[in-house]
Amino acid sequence: MPYVNIKITREGATVEQKAQLIQGVTQLLVDVLGKNPKTTVVVIDEVDTDNWGIGGETVTILRKRK
Amino acid sequence: MPYVNIKITREGATVEQKAQLIQGVTQLLVDVLGKNPKTTVVVIDEVDTDNWGIGGETVTILRKRK
Amino acid sequence: MPYVNIKITREGATVEQKAQLIQGVTQLLVDVLGKNPKTTVVVIDEVDTDNWGIGGETVTILRKRK
Amino acid sequence: MPYVNIKITREGATVEQKAQLIQGVTQLLVDVLGKNPKTTVVVIDEVDTDNWGIGGETVTILRKRK
Amino acid sequence: MPYVNIKITREGATVEQKAQLIQGVTQLLVDVLGKNPKTTVVVIDEVDTDNWGIGGETVTILRKRK
Amino acid sequence: MPYVNIKITREGATVEQKAQLIQGVTQLLVDVLGKNPKTTVVVIDEVDTDNWGIGGETVTILRKRK
Repeated sequence: MPYVNIKITREGATVEQKAQLIQGVTQLLVDVLGKNPKTTVVVIDEVDTDNWGIGGETVTILRKRK
Repeated sequence: MPYVNIKITREGATVEQKAQLIQGVTQLLVDVLGKNPKTTVVVIDEVDTDNWGIGGETVTILRKRK
Repeated sequence: MPYVNIKITREGATVEQKAQLIQGVTQLLVDVLGKNPKTTVVVIDEVDTDNWGIGGETVTILRKRK
Repeated sequence: MPYVNIKITREGATVEQKAQLIQGVTQLLVDVLGKNPKTTVVVIDEVDTDNWGIGGETVTILRKRK
Repeated sequence: MPYVNIKITREGATVEQKAQLIQGVTQLLVDVLGKNPKTTVVVIDEVDTDNWGIGGETVTILRKRK
Repeated sequence: MPYVNIKITREGATVEQKAQLIQGVTQLLVDVLGKNPKTTVVVIDEVDTDNWGIGGETVTILRKRK
């Protein structure tokens, strides 16, 4: 019955990629800890690059610099 | 001064229903623990069904199957 | 399949009180939104009063003042 | 390598203000705890006023009353 | 630069198992989304069974029944 | 009425340092967004180094290597 929250920047992850993340992390919890997949909940948050900071700067600014 | 975060799938909860959740959970914390409602904060996150997984699958896929 | 996280200060909530919170918030989601209780997950975090701030001060200091 | 999550109501915070929050909280963690800013992550969530409750009411209703 | 939070009940996960979860979910984000592992943060919360509810009951009670 | 959650590794932050974080981030929200400090909530989570991963490894292992 684990709960997993994955936060990524909103930069075009597809429906298929998000389904793969959900499938993969659920399986990981089965493989490593023997958790029941039926009650394993995964929530993906996609966050605007203006709202995500690393190194004191927004990802919007980091992306422009490159 | 509790903080409550409620995550639900984005499937049409109305403004009135969300107000009821906020009212109800705040009252529950008053009734059970004697918490001060004035500083009780409730945040509701509505999550796309593509971004919510249970049993290793997205809710989008679960809804289609039924 | 909602997920609820309740954060309270660690100030002596009993096992029974925590069970009441879990029962109450699960029922609230059934009553207001018709959610399935079987896959409703509730996690309670109890936080040291040194680690909880309101009004710019820790709860430890607020409790001493009173 | 701290992680900071700031939740505010969605009421017009600008890109510049959000960048200031990210810069400021990252610097605070450097100043107080000597944390490495390069791996300090800050995520800002802007929440609809219908989805934020305090005192048992939504912020939407609180704003109207004033 | 994703951030992943894994919440599990505190029921004896070993240091090695937790390291496997961290390694596995970081690799998953590399494989599915091409994310940079160097800035991928994973936080595991282990929650007392008295503080985790599913189906309106605590896990402590669920475990006793079986 | 913002809510801030700061997650750091449990490596000896003092009561005074945690009070400074709470004071500093509350003031930041006043300065940048004009938020009301009275209803600004800050929660600090201190996480075991076995439970925190970056770059696919636990902080426990990273600390030993240095």
